[in-house]
Amino acid sequence: MKIAYLGAGVWGFCLARLLASKGYEVVSWSVDEVHAERLNTTKEHPNLKGALITGNALFTTDLQKALQGADLIVESVTASGIRPVFEKIKAIGIKPGTPIAFTSKGIEQNSGLILSDVAISILGEEFRNSVGSLSGPSFADEVSRNLPTAIVCAGYSADTVNFIVDAFTTNFFRVYPTQDVRGVAFGGSLKNIIAIACGISDGLGLGTGAKATLMTRGLHEIVKLARSQNCRPETLYGLSGMGDLFLTCSSTLSRNYRFGKLLSQNITPENAKKEIGMVVEGAYSAIAALQLSRPTNIPLPITEAVVDILEGKILPKDAVSKLMQRSVKEEYL
Amino acid sequence: MKIAYLGAGVWGFCLARLLASKGYEVVSWSVDEVHAERLNTTKEHPNLKGALITGNALFTTDLQKALQGADLIVESVTASGIRPVFEKIKAIGIKPGTPIAFTSKGIEQNSGLILSDVAISILGEEFRNSVGSLSGPSFADEVSRNLPTAIVCAGYSADTVNFIVDAFTTNFFRVYPTQDVRGVAFGGSLKNIIAIACGISDGLGLGTGAKATLMTRGLHEIVKLARSQNCRPETLYGLSGMGDLFLTCSSTLSRNYRFGKLLSQNITPENAKKEIGMVVEGAYSAIAALQLSRPTNIPLPITEAVVDILEGKILPKDAVSKLMQRSVKEEYL
Repeated sequence: MKIAYLGAGVWGFCLARLLASKGYEVVSWSVDEVHAERLNTTKEHPNLKGALITGNALFTTDLQKALQGADLIVESVTASGIRPVFEKIKAIGIKPGTPIAFTSKGIEQNSGLILSDVAISILGEEFRNSVGSLSGPSFADEVSRNLPTAIVCAGYSADTVNFIVDAFTTNFFRVYPTQDVRGVAFGGSLKNIIAIACGISDGLGLGTGAKATLMTRGLHEIVKLARSQNCRPETLYGLSGMGDLFLTCSSTLSRNYRFGKLLSQNITPENAKKEIGMVVEGAYSAIAALQLSRPTNIPLPITEAVVDILEGKILPKDAVSKLMQRSVKEEYL
Repeated sequence: MKIAYLGAGVWGFCLARLLASKGYEVVSWSVDEVHAERLNTTKEHPNLKGALITGNALFTTDLQKALQGADLIVESVTASGIRPVFEKIKAIGIKPGTPIAFTSKGIEQNSGLILSDVAISILGEEFRNSVGSLSGPSFADEVSRNLPTAIVCAGYSADTVNFIVDAFTTNFFRVYPTQDVRGVAFGGSLKNIIAIACGISDGLGLGTGAKATLMTRGLHEIVKLARSQNCRPETLYGLSGMGDLFLTCSSTLSRNYRFGKLLSQNITPENAKKEIGMVVEGAYSAIAALQLSRPTNIPLPITEAVVDILEGKILPKDAVSKLMQRSVKEEYL
């Protein structure tokens, strides 16, 4: 089997390495010629030391060469990279029915589309049964050290999902199939709002109880909203929802969590974004979530507080007091 | 309002202090005369430095004096202390209908009863509408510093629950009412099994992804089992379930988590229990959970692995491999 891998960042390299270790031919495409050549020479990603890629693996800047005869396409190009890459793929042309696995998370800004829908909108509706999205609690550093990891793969076609599951599964890396594509996309995107809130809470020194409460009530908000969008609650309570939420809120590596910590120090959202230097997905997701909640009046108090802080309407410490002083009702109302 | 508080450990002292700060008369009962006298003199618990108790608060070893004219009874005496204390209370006699708030967690060994049922079995069925159980992610140290905390109160009678909720609620300490008494008891007890598993995982150095997976799949097991016992899944996904699970698995203070860490070093369960020096609730809960699952054949792979390790049937590292090699099915089967 030949796999075309789009993107050679840390996560892309890590999974390309996993696939190559299973004996597949992997041709990874990168826009960066120097980077691609270094990977071909050193067999090691500079940010993932000690994890050499072996087997039939090549890095190239020639997208056509990567796609040529591919039985599976995998992308790890970040949310904002999806549209330009799939426009290039459309121009080159791929065999109808080629399975495409997505590993980036998020919802495209402006269009509000989940990432696989961005690709489908470019390639054509006939590719709907070709997509599968991988999501779940995973760190490249841990996967590359063969530490046990479990994630999900969501797609519309069970055949495609099972094909992708089989391609990735090893004794250490387990992929569970699901058909709740939107649920997986929502969890992966909305968890970042809660990560911002947890960063604020930890930054203010509010303690472990407050953080556990934010995660629990925050996930409850996500589930309510996702349910209104016909997602399965089980998906949000699963590896791609709750599992990834735990990971993101527990890790100082998370951009969204670090962004929240900066906000807690009364740094303006603009300056905090500059300091992070990359897209802070949760800041955008929070606004998108509020927009989605309006038609059904679903209350999203934590999301609202994050948006109010981002818009400078309230200071982080005052937002916390406001959240705590909401009237005490039945837990699950 | 007069409150009889049973137990003057750290958590009992912390909540007695909270209640006294609201202007209630609080008479706390302790079996330890030296401890009670010291608390009366210093107004401070030796393990909760800096949190002075003020207002109308007294510590005594005279249970009758504590109970005399009480409008509310609160217990913080640990799971194994419930039966002897309520036998004493039965002998002294209390006014029918007096609300009783439970803060201890667990399931009584041998009888398998949840703690409020132990009290009801002693006081009489007419006390069923008098009980309420407080549970959720909370640390005495954080509550005593007025850090925001949110928990639930579960009881059969909405009036009793609302009475207890009003008694405890402050601007910083929020109590959400619920009627799912068994769901709250199950979450508080079964989470300890997962805490043992997370201790083992962290002790083996398996990483954050593995821990997030254990928490997610572990909670899924708890929910399946609780559902078969007519508990509401929302309760297990709430503050007393997921919230407390997150707290327990994140804290090196947790006995169950520390027990798991010792097991990961191939210390025998007997020696690990000796080293912890207190009851390791999760070790008992795991066996109870397996017994409950048998009539319905609900698969509990993580719980089974913990029991197999406790019974010396498998080494921790082999249990992990076995868990990872289970066949990959739909996530929520």
